[in-house]
Amino acid sequence: MEHSVFGTNFRIMTWGESHGAGVGVTIDGVPAGLSLCEKDIQDMLDRRRPGQSDMTTARSEADRAAILSGVFEGVTLGTPIAIEVRNQDQHSRDYSNLKDVYRPGHADYGFDSKYGFRDHRGGGRSSGRETIGRVAAGAVAAKLLAELGISVTSYTRSIGDVEIGSFDADVIRTNPLFMPDAQAAERATEYVRACREDKDSCGGVIETRVQGMMPGIGDPVFGKLDAALAGAMFSIGAVKGFEIGEGFNAARLRGSENNDPFVSEDGHITKRTNHSGGILGGISDGDEIVFRVAVKPTPSIAREQDTVDRYGNNTRITISGRHDPVIVPRAVVVVEAMTDLVLADAVISGLGARLSNIKEVYKR
Amino acid sequence: MEHSVFGTNFRIMTWGESHGAGVGVTIDGVPAGLSLCEKDIQDMLDRRRPGQSDMTTARSEADRAAILSGVFEGVTLGTPIAIEVRNQDQHSRDYSNLKDVYRPGHADYGFDSKYGFRDHRGGGRSSGRETIGRVAAGAVAAKLLAELGISVTSYTRSIGDVEIGSFDADVIRTNPLFMPDAQAAERATEYVRACREDKDSCGGVIETRVQGMMPGIGDPVFGKLDAALAGAMFSIGAVKGFEIGEGFNAARLRGSENNDPFVSEDGHITKRTNHSGGILGGISDGDEIVFRVAVKPTPSIAREQDTVDRYGNNTRITISGRHDPVIVPRAVVVVEAMTDLVLADAVISGLGARLSNIKEVYKR
Amino acid sequence: MEHSVFGTNFRIMTWGESHGAGVGVTIDGVPAGLSLCEKDIQDMLDRRRPGQSDMTTARSEADRAAILSGVFEGVTLGTPIAIEVRNQDQHSRDYSNLKDVYRPGHADYGFDSKYGFRDHRGGGRSSGRETIGRVAAGAVAAKLLAELGISVTSYTRSIGDVEIGSFDADVIRTNPLFMPDAQAAERATEYVRACREDKDSCGGVIETRVQGMMPGIGDPVFGKLDAALAGAMFSIGAVKGFEIGEGFNAARLRGSENNDPFVSEDGHITKRTNHSGGILGGISDGDEIVFRVAVKPTPSIAREQDTVDRYGNNTRITISGRHDPVIVPRAVVVVEAMTDLVLADAVISGLGARLSNIKEVYKR
Amino acid sequence: MEHSVFGTNFRIMTWGESHGAGVGVTIDGVPAGLSLCEKDIQDMLDRRRPGQSDMTTARSEADRAAILSGVFEGVTLGTPIAIEVRNQDQHSRDYSNLKDVYRPGHADYGFDSKYGFRDHRGGGRSSGRETIGRVAAGAVAAKLLAELGISVTSYTRSIGDVEIGSFDADVIRTNPLFMPDAQAAERATEYVRACREDKDSCGGVIETRVQGMMPGIGDPVFGKLDAALAGAMFSIGAVKGFEIGEGFNAARLRGSENNDPFVSEDGHITKRTNHSGGILGGISDGDEIVFRVAVKPTPSIAREQDTVDRYGNNTRITISGRHDPVIVPRAVVVVEAMTDLVLADAVISGLGARLSNIKEVYKR
Repeated sequence: MEHSVFGTNFRIMTWGESHGAGVGVTIDGVPAGLSLCEKDIQDMLDRRRPGQSDMTTARSEADRAAILSGVFEGVTLGTPIAIEVRNQDQHSRDYSNLKDVYRPGHADYGFDSKYGFRDHRGGGRSSGRETIGRVAAGAVAAKLLAELGISVTSYTRSIGDVEIGSFDADVIRTNPLFMPDAQAAERATEYVRACREDKDSCGGVIETRVQGMMPGIGDPVFGKLDAALAGAMFSIGAVKGFEIGEGFNAARLRGSENNDPFVSEDGHITKRTNHSGGILGGISDGDEIVFRVAVKPTPSIAREQDTVDRYGNNTRITISGRHDPVIVPRAVVVVEAMTDLVLADAVISGLGARLSNIKEVYKR
Repeated sequence: MEHSVFGTNFRIMTWGESHGAGVGVTIDGVPAGLSLCEKDIQDMLDRRRPGQSDMTTARSEADRAAILSGVFEGVTLGTPIAIEVRNQDQHSRDYSNLKDVYRPGHADYGFDSKYGFRDHRGGGRSSGRETIGRVAAGAVAAKLLAELGISVTSYTRSIGDVEIGSFDADVIRTNPLFMPDAQAAERATEYVRACREDKDSCGGVIETRVQGMMPGIGDPVFGKLDAALAGAMFSIGAVKGFEIGEGFNAARLRGSENNDPFVSEDGHITKRTNHSGGILGGISDGDEIVFRVAVKPTPSIAREQDTVDRYGNNTRITISGRHDPVIVPRAVVVVEAMTDLVLADAVISGLGARLSNIKEVYKR
Repeated sequence: MEHSVFGTNFRIMTWGESHGAGVGVTIDGVPAGLSLCEKDIQDMLDRRRPGQSDMTTARSEADRAAILSGVFEGVTLGTPIAIEVRNQDQHSRDYSNLKDVYRPGHADYGFDSKYGFRDHRGGGRSSGRETIGRVAAGAVAAKLLAELGISVTSYTRSIGDVEIGSFDADVIRTNPLFMPDAQAAERATEYVRACREDKDSCGGVIETRVQGMMPGIGDPVFGKLDAALAGAMFSIGAVKGFEIGEGFNAARLRGSENNDPFVSEDGHITKRTNHSGGILGGISDGDEIVFRVAVKPTPSIAREQDTVDRYGNNTRITISGRHDPVIVPRAVVVVEAMTDLVLADAVISGLGARLSNIKEVYKR
Repeated sequence: MEHSVFGTNFRIMTWGESHGAGVGVTIDGVPAGLSLCEKDIQDMLDRRRPGQSDMTTARSEADRAAILSGVFEGVTLGTPIAIEVRNQDQHSRDYSNLKDVYRPGHADYGFDSKYGFRDHRGGGRSSGRETIGRVAAGAVAAKLLAELGISVTSYTRSIGDVEIGSFDADVIRTNPLFMPDAQAAERATEYVRACREDKDSCGGVIETRVQGMMPGIGDPVFGKLDAALAGAMFSIGAVKGFEIGEGFNAARLRGSENNDPFVSEDGHITKRTNHSGGILGGISDGDEIVFRVAVKPTPSIAREQDTVDRYGNNTRITISGRHDPVIVPRAVVVVEAMTDLVLADAVISGLGARLSNIKEVYKR
């Protein structure tokens, strides 16, 4: 039950409510000697910015990231890196109609049950704006992984019933839904528009691929690499499912179908297939890591809905404002960032696995 | 990356290799004043014992649990509870053919990559016997939850393509597959037998229902209750997927279909439907918690398989010995135990959420 | 080895270098429902501000604290509280002479050994300015403790050989050395001036008293309340000793002298003496908690000193700038803040010690 | 507030009450590839065994350690190491007179206040027997440190007013008080006998020296190496003070006296003096680490004492049984073990401090 802390040796703490003064993150455990500048972070943050197309809310969020500590002359110091984004125009709307009423599909009722009250403006702490801190931290983790030859790519696999039929990494950032298949992206775009016109919303599936992962990362028991990924993905609001490799389909296969034979080519060990999704027994097997995340439809819809107020009266609610008709495209970069964070933590945590590693580092 | 530690305020550490001297667990953070005896633990442990039918391995594992600390005159002291099961006959077989060869679908290659070598006998640390410690600890957590009116029930939802068509809780323990539908259990039994006769194995899906959960448990960000459950489930070997409520199906629904309207009956707040699966924004919403876990087919199959040895030579392997043709029925109680552990931790961790709680406890 | 994180259930993460953009803290685990405003924090921060007398450096540090999250309409939300102080004029001086030379008594050499390089300006991360975040967080903890009737008072017990001979709490804030004895304060002031005129510095002892502590707080083994206090105090730079109750003197007493007889007055249990310092076996005994901390003399002195540079050359260094001739008075509020943090964490962590507490909270 | 868990990356959990079935420890995070056998542990455990002279209790405690997991063919696996010592004759005495009465100087009253009741036999969880698990784990840590050329030596510096006047490491284990000065040991022995004959007890000071420590270990803020040591030492029952290097005396020195000039000899950086005690700003400076711990007199004395019972009645207590007249000699090895644990954790936790370390380990 880590409230707002994530990770063990590469550890972040996020803060901020949607309509407070800002949102941010502090990262503890970044090794010294890594090149880092604000542009590294801004580039990744810009990928979650709304208003880039009609696929996302028309709200304007500038979201300029500032690095406040931990970097000196363009290089990390080994000390905590604080990154902050000040909120703009956080007082621009009237949320008073939400103060005492529980929005269906949201955490409002849970917050009141837990804390006794809540910041009802724009979702407060459970707003998607909280993920800004995660994405900023993920950009730092990605820089570290790049030094080890590891890269993470997340993209939209499906929107509603529209699923990709092909995969071209270069296509991902050419469409507002971040799909690697241009034709599927077009059909999905139509579907999203239809939902919105119908005062409704839709969901989808995000897929992630990790290239360059060495074998031997992750721990055998509670620190399984896929357990860390599953926990990380479910820490993102609106996620309802996670599966790796064959995933739920593995439950229908036979052992002879699902097992991946190892093969050796020139002394290099690999697998003939990748039903495992790159992790076996919680430890990376050197293959591509592949997993999927199911994202529910945006709960804030323009239709009037039945609900109750905090005093236990039945009532109806209409949620005004400009909401994403689908959360998926903006969640893609959050999924990627959380993956970066899990892998950076796992790589650092694995340094002490062998006595020989320890002796090697301290022989200096 | 917690190696062998799980939980924050109700915290366990498991230990043991499949063919070492024994396996066990120590639980830190059990409140004082809880009635507890060895029978409470043994009853839950017996549910994972093999050899109860031809659905599981014919290996005989007595698995007698001993409580070594933390309980005095039948009541918990508030100090760590150490529970231990000594291994029987751990030297009875010759595993030397597995020493240098990597079994497909197992963590062998990952262990060698990480640690440089491994205990190759019976899976070593990644053996299913490691879960004995979890089940023992889960029995303690279940006792705590029972005091709060919370109960957890796990069962087999499907084996291969055979899925339950009805649910009767009383049926679960009447069949060796722990299915709540007697007819489906019969068909699934046939399917498992066919797999085994074919020197093959199969997988399935385990479902869990939690009754009596109060609203307001879980944290808004990284300590989401479903994130903790997802991480816990993926810490169980062979799990490849996790979904809650509508799960992956939510990705295909519209917001108007997936949202659960709140309703008030006599001032008591509840939901008209339960697509959420009892958790909204990471916090329990007072409804039944429902989630599913996909378990892959047993990787140890009797057929000869292609693989490599640690020196990078291609080779073939035949795994002898008596293995479960399906892991699912023995994993049911592990899933239930991990759920108990997550909920006990969440309930204790939530005590400090409100100033008024703190003042209430210390007014004594 | 928690880098920049402190605490378990009331947990802080500090960030910032002395000459970076600012310093700050995020607090995770503050219960909802606590009144809090920026003035609460500023009042405590002002007590560590330099330039209030000639006992501290003449540097001007405005240090305005801003609360960026976690408080809504003057009440804590239960979500992380981010507090930040932007640095002023951080580029005003030339520190290049310190870049390659190791100051005696400072962590410079250790930083370079650990990280390979460092931010050499004004101490970087090991600057006293890092403690601003701790003091800000301590102010929040103090507010929580006040709700439970617990108050912490730290003060200067001695400077060099000048020790207090009397104790009047009202005197503490009337002199720049924060001594509870006006006459001792005068003599100590003379001593500090003499040291400074001699281009030298001096140290002293800080004492802390906690009033209103209930019995039963702290854990029996590694979470002993005095262990947490000792670790917290040694996390403050320049601290070289910690003792509680009789402290080092207990090593010279006999058991019959050092034991505190319990006595009962009208059914209320207390102790006839307080050699224990309010903690027995790691758990508060309901008496006043009393401990002392030894602070070394400021290592930055105006005299020229022998040292080496990072290339292994012997050299001499003269540290210019305005430094505190004695660290003690500015450390007093840091000691008090760290005590507040330890006690707030201990109180929250103790909520789950008894089953009856848990049932009481959730009966709602 | 870690209850029974200590350490971050080299982490232990101890369990056991003095009169339960046994005591033990599980160690998580031991690197794979370290030679380890039961004799390594038994040798260290034997140093805390009572009954070796009339300086300690005449109780006979065989204390045979068994390694139950984590070691395969004499080498650590990287998995948790469980070590256990079964209690002998734990039901041999009648402790019923202690059930409702609070012993002065003990944690009895605190336990009842915290948990509502306690195991009153022989101190229960707060018994010195709990340290058996720490010593066993310390033996494993010492093996790891030895591979890096680091060695820890603890010994008795003073008993009552009798302090050592010379230091000869070879003398330490030749006298039952573990003093490095044979003549002081003789005088101290006389003093202890006099205390015991007087139905009283005495305390003393334990000193520790660490040889072979590389610079750069420990963290700048909350993970200071001396903060970890201070917390570790205060987790040992009966410890009332901790100081490093000059310690409390530093509070009386001037900066020019207390600073240690760095000097370079053949490019090797060292310090001319060691007032720091080997740690500056929380990070090892490459010098010998030297610290002292004050231990109070044994609270269990043969004299009748005033106290109260749990119902709030004034009463008198006579503690029968055979108790150590001085805790110091048996605590020496506990201090050494806790130091081993802190250093092993710090060394492993430091592996990720630099990007270059990470790249070096994973280039394989």
